[in-house]
Amino acid sequence: MYRSVNLSLRRFIAMAGKGASTAAAKGKKKEVKKETGLGLSYKKDENFGEWYSEVVVNGEMIEYYDISGCYILRPWAMSIWEVMQTFFDAEIKKMKIKNCYFPLFVSSGVLQKEKDHIEGFAPEVRLLCFWSRAWRVLCLLMVYDSLSWPCCLGYKVGESELEMPIAIRPTSETVMYPYFSKWIRGHRDLPLRLNQWCNVVRWEFSNPTPFIRSREFLWQEGHTAFATKEEADTEVLDILELYRRIYEEYLAVPAFVPNTGRGVQGATSHCLGQNFAKMFEINFENEKGEKAMVWQNSWAYTTRTIGVMIMVHGDDKGLVLPPKVASVQVIVIPVPYKDADTKGIFDACAATVKTLNGSGIRAEADFRDNYSPGWKYSQWELKGVPLRIEIGPKDFANNQVRAVRSDNSTKHDIPMADLVERVQDMLNQIQESLFDAAKQKNEMPVFRLHTWEEFAEALSQKKMILAPWCDEEEVEKDVKTRTKGDMGAAKSLCSPFDQPELPEGTLCFASGKPAKKWTYWGRSY
Amino acid sequence: MYRSVNLSLRRFIAMAGKGASTAAAKGKKKEVKKETGLGLSYKKDENFGEWYSEVVVNGEMIEYYDISGCYILRPWAMSIWEVMQTFFDAEIKKMKIKNCYFPLFVSSGVLQKEKDHIEGFAPEVRLLCFWSRAWRVLCLLMVYDSLSWPCCLGYKVGESELEMPIAIRPTSETVMYPYFSKWIRGHRDLPLRLNQWCNVVRWEFSNPTPFIRSREFLWQEGHTAFATKEEADTEVLDILELYRRIYEEYLAVPAFVPNTGRGVQGATSHCLGQNFAKMFEINFENEKGEKAMVWQNSWAYTTRTIGVMIMVHGDDKGLVLPPKVASVQVIVIPVPYKDADTKGIFDACAATVKTLNGSGIRAEADFRDNYSPGWKYSQWELKGVPLRIEIGPKDFANNQVRAVRSDNSTKHDIPMADLVERVQDMLNQIQESLFDAAKQKNEMPVFRLHTWEEFAEALSQKKMILAPWCDEEEVEKDVKTRTKGDMGAAKSLCSPFDQPELPEGTLCFASGKPAKKWTYWGRSY
Repeated sequence: MYRSVNLSLRRFIAMAGKGASTAAAKGKKKEVKKETGLGLSYKKDENFGEWYSEVVVNGEMIEYYDISGCYILRPWAMSIWEVMQTFFDAEIKKMKIKNCYFPLFVSSGVLQKEKDHIEGFAPEVRLLCFWSRAWRVLCLLMVYDSLSWPCCLGYKVGESELEMPIAIRPTSETVMYPYFSKWIRGHRDLPLRLNQWCNVVRWEFSNPTPFIRSREFLWQEGHTAFATKEEADTEVLDILELYRRIYEEYLAVPAFVPNTGRGVQGATSHCLGQNFAKMFEINFENEKGEKAMVWQNSWAYTTRTIGVMIMVHGDDKGLVLPPKVASVQVIVIPVPYKDADTKGIFDACAATVKTLNGSGIRAEADFRDNYSPGWKYSQWELKGVPLRIEIGPKDFANNQVRAVRSDNSTKHDIPMADLVERVQDMLNQIQESLFDAAKQKNEMPVFRLHTWEEFAEALSQKKMILAPWCDEEEVEKDVKTRTKGDMGAAKSLCSPFDQPELPEGTLCFASGKPAKKWTYWGRSY
Repeated sequence: MYRSVNLSLRRFIAMAGKGASTAAAKGKKKEVKKETGLGLSYKKDENFGEWYSEVVVNGEMIEYYDISGCYILRPWAMSIWEVMQTFFDAEIKKMKIKNCYFPLFVSSGVLQKEKDHIEGFAPEVRLLCFWSRAWRVLCLLMVYDSLSWPCCLGYKVGESELEMPIAIRPTSETVMYPYFSKWIRGHRDLPLRLNQWCNVVRWEFSNPTPFIRSREFLWQEGHTAFATKEEADTEVLDILELYRRIYEEYLAVPAFVPNTGRGVQGATSHCLGQNFAKMFEINFENEKGEKAMVWQNSWAYTTRTIGVMIMVHGDDKGLVLPPKVASVQVIVIPVPYKDADTKGIFDACAATVKTLNGSGIRAEADFRDNYSPGWKYSQWELKGVPLRIEIGPKDFANNQVRAVRSDNSTKHDIPMADLVERVQDMLNQIQESLFDAAKQKNEMPVFRLHTWEEFAEALSQKKMILAPWCDEEEVEKDVKTRTKGDMGAAKSLCSPFDQPELPEGTLCFASGKPAKKWTYWGRSY
């Protein structure tokens, strides 16, 4: 219930053949010759990791930064995040969820509090705690005096200069919930529904990968408290529906909602129950005048979603952006020729952009005079612009433009009179066809099996597995140890809510103990 | 040229009589009885510091946090920031400035680079460096191993566990400019105009104050590079104009643009010249094929502006929010009475809200049944809602509402038929009258003087000073030392671009050396 499930992502990566094991996965910085060769050196099916690394850099989404695991989100990526942000923010405001901003830092007192509470709590909380450890909280030791600058440069850390350690938020439960406890007194203070857009830091050590696994990333985190479980449950589903819409309607990626109904890849919305309410004493007086504990949800989605989108749609020519999130939906390129009326062609390009912009279509012209049209085609293909419009002498003479779709390379001559309508249609078609293609790729079969041998074989073939399990933490640990490799270790992904039949006497594939339930397994990226 | 000027802010604070010296200024956390007494314990004119602290907490803008100098921005404050953000972001996008996101962390290599360059550079850069020092860069020592969590709690910092120190950005010049150098090759790569919305950290030690001086704050920072100084200069003025509009049109605070034309309180826009271009080797090949250096600007405004707004408009009843930034512009309160048609009154309230919302006016009804109308009036006054609408039996019978303006407490009976028009008019009037009142307060005379004695006297009276100065850094340091007190030390604010006449032989008020220019002085908050 606490885990974010990334089945679909895994599926897509598995589809990519030899897999994401090299440069991108290892965060190796690759210098790419910009001016001379626009084509990608790697193919998606042959070397997924190198391909991904190359496509995010050459497509100008990402610049590698001089601290490992930190990446620069360039405008080409940021604009995608902003489109999703605008949609989601407006939707949650309709739901009366309010934005706020809590501090970046978590005090050691609060960290200590969480630790004190770990042992005595239910498995769900211990799971949460485990989850927290996995984040590798970045510990800050503040070293300062009146000359903090040289001190900072000098690495001098004498005992006397140390203050209390402060952590940077990996998430804000422990930051926020003490104040939930303070603000919530009676039932009239409920529901309390807050959201913040912010950066968080998780000091990951393995395989830093742009968007997918970075030490700092951007997200929204919603934290809400209700008087009843029913209200909390309703919100979980409402938010999941928004995440589904972001994935499907914007990113054109099928949103895998596992049978639990509780996970969307790279986005999670779940009912926390009352465990945090216990831990942080978030109580209220209910309508009968009795003391009660709140029911809480938290839900988040991150810039990771952009990485998923790139992995799903990108091809050997570069990025492929769904029109709804592309900051440039249409690139207009003049194709002058010898004695042709160059000025006329350029003016037609400008007029085309103006007409499209006037109808709310995000179009730009590329008038650079030091690149050939062919070079420009390649560059905008690399950057994944959904639709290219070319205007050459013949088009100009016929008062038409030539449109080339990025998704299937088909060419269409469009009379200027039909411009807006036809372009809008094509953008819609591209959005749809990307989604359809992604859905097809996503229909990978799940392998149902019973033994360790079958499991190991299916894993080596990068298959998705459904197996009977004893549901013991120690056994999962053991599975991880036994399967550890370049591609990460195998782990349980989630258990289907609608369990297949589990006949009496069925044994766990891993431990041989009696199985308690069917569970999905796979290597986690 | 590098300093952010806060003349107006100082003026307002000076106006506030006994000044901002106590609780707020010292960041003392004050527990305020919420339920029992809504009124403020302190008066703005009598104890500005305590008043400010009380008003930001009781008005639900801020919650004090358990790390000194960090504050929680509650939805009531965040919504104001969002209004300004929406305006500014749309405007800079029209200017083709693009949003991006650079990492939170600065590597020690880059810090070292800046240090290496400090000595050899022009006074402007040394000033920048001094400025950097004043930020008290928070130095991180990352302490981690596979058990980072206990390690973090245990404060164990053995030599072997230390990595390179990493700083958290106090601003992003050193984060961004190495990549400007990488991305800019030829004149066609210019202008490069980037902006980011983010958090920054400056580990201040004195007088933490909500919004005004906090260790973490939110801002936008624009960083741009041009081929020519002319283009850079034009942008500086364009951005200043946007800041002026935020202040005047949204926050209803007169934007003090000093005679240099280069500063707006709590917001700065300035041409950095070519110093950073030298430091970070940001060169390009110009149209003649020659190597040239870029001209750079940076510009920023922060959540500090919200604090300024509160200080300017707030009164002894609480916050006073200008309608254009208030998340609730109109609060509608039912005033039922004994045998009156309570349901009718409640329905009329709901209908009023619906009508106003339908016209884009941000209105809400307060239907809470456990508070009296009078209590609600006080609470919404405390929160600074611009317009209150009351509907009682008489109003209901007459098909009218009673509107009460927050700025002057005048009452107006409005027929339902005229509701939208009259409410919109009143909101406009309130916005205007707040601005007019602020302008009047801002017209504080500047005292022109020549000697230390006059200076000390004027300073003790919290006056703004214009004095002849030798323009030596050491002398300013000395002035600071000699004037250090509870209210901060005096410092130079800026030098007027249009210098008053400075007769030969005029001496510096502080050092007695020959004066080089007239400069504004005051205590800086």
